[in-house]
Amino acid sequence: MAFNAQYARVIDNDQVEQWPDCFADDCLYLVTTDENHRQGMQAGMIYADSRGMLQDRIAALREANVYESHRYRHLIGLPVVLKREAGLAEVETPFMVARINRNGTTELFATGRYLDEVVDSEADGLRLKQRIVVCDSQSIDTLLAIPL
Amino acid sequence: MAFNAQYARVIDNDQVEQWPDCFADDCLYLVTTDENHRQGMQAGMIYADSRGMLQDRIAALREANVYESHRYRHLIGLPVVLKREAGLAEVETPFMVARINRNGTTELFATGRYLDEVVDSEADGLRLKQRIVVCDSQSIDTLLAIPL
Amino acid sequence: MAFNAQYARVIDNDQVEQWPDCFADDCLYLVTTDENHRQGMQAGMIYADSRGMLQDRIAALREANVYESHRYRHLIGLPVVLKREAGLAEVETPFMVARINRNGTTELFATGRYLDEVVDSEADGLRLKQRIVVCDSQSIDTLLAIPL
Repeated sequence: MAFNAQYARVIDNDQVEQWPDCFADDCLYLVTTDENHRQGMQAGMIYADSRGMLQDRIAALREANVYESHRYRHLIGLPVVLKREAGLAEVETPFMVARINRNGTTELFATGRYLDEVVDSEADGLRLKQRIVVCDSQSIDTLLAIPL
Repeated sequence: MAFNAQYARVIDNDQVEQWPDCFADDCLYLVTTDENHRQGMQAGMIYADSRGMLQDRIAALREANVYESHRYRHLIGLPVVLKREAGLAEVETPFMVARINRNGTTELFATGRYLDEVVDSEADGLRLKQRIVVCDSQSIDTLLAIPL
Repeated sequence: MAFNAQYARVIDNDQVEQWPDCFADDCLYLVTTDENHRQGMQAGMIYADSRGMLQDRIAALREANVYESHRYRHLIGLPVVLKREAGLAEVETPFMVARINRNGTTELFATGRYLDEVVDSEADGLRLKQRIVVCDSQSIDTLLAIPL
């Protein structure tokens, strides 16, 4: 829970350059919908399979001034540990994300669950080996930019 | 908190046949409004006083294909323990529930609090002897179907 | 987390006379926006620097029957401890607040984060020496009345 609190904080407080540090070097970050996920599709609205790709993504968003136009507020729920092995855990965690637009309006932007594989390396603490963001709605804004 | 995480998960992930297992055989599940609750009314929008009644309810919802039309996402807050005795606790816990409609729209559907009596039986772990779902709004959709 | 659960409960359950007890005698309670906060402005939509001021505020709201017209539901997220010293901790915690209007409508009213200084006095348990409520949106309802 402390890990997820930190994850949400770097995104919502506009310190998103620290967001890739939540992941292992070799990782999978995928944003998809429940419908696609149930059909076993690996494609998603966002796909990255290394920490370097996550860093590139953030750099591109900064250049495009995406963070000027809106911001997010994550509320991350209680985790359910599905499996635990030596140094590795599979965890499912629900979330709600509000989007606060530059004009002041606030809306419930996305709901869903994280399907995680978390590794515990003694040197770096907890890291995400996998975070599949399964959105409940089929129609997540395709302009989706800031990480969920 | 782990119990509530599991409670929300079986509902939101469409494994609602497991939802009655969260309750003791002899139980009270009531969905009501804050106004009705303060007036001491026992009637509610949903009333069940045994685990069998909860199972019947789920079976009926399945037959009516209710789960095709929309889904929920629960975010359950931090519990306040009001009373603790041998093997029994009274707990109050806030919640928000979003409804994701088939057309893709997401709305904040219900907010409120759970008033629980939780029993700890060594054989089965935690079970709800009582869950009164007190909704904040007077006008919860009367088509209310999926459990809160 | 137990402290924040209790904080939200007294506000949302209309026991708001107990809300000032969450604060130290000598305290700062400030409701502001992210934009103002980043510019270092101390002014805010609500400002109080003693527990007595908080009590006065609640008394005024009661007289004006503010609690008749709407209510809140807080969902408080996971805290991030930023600093910990003897008897004092700096903590940041995200929140979402829904407003339930008398006509039954529910809306996502405010999102943001609490910037807290929490003191642990042996006699009274945890108390807020400072709670700065940093709202994400610039346009929080100026009729803002019930504490966030």
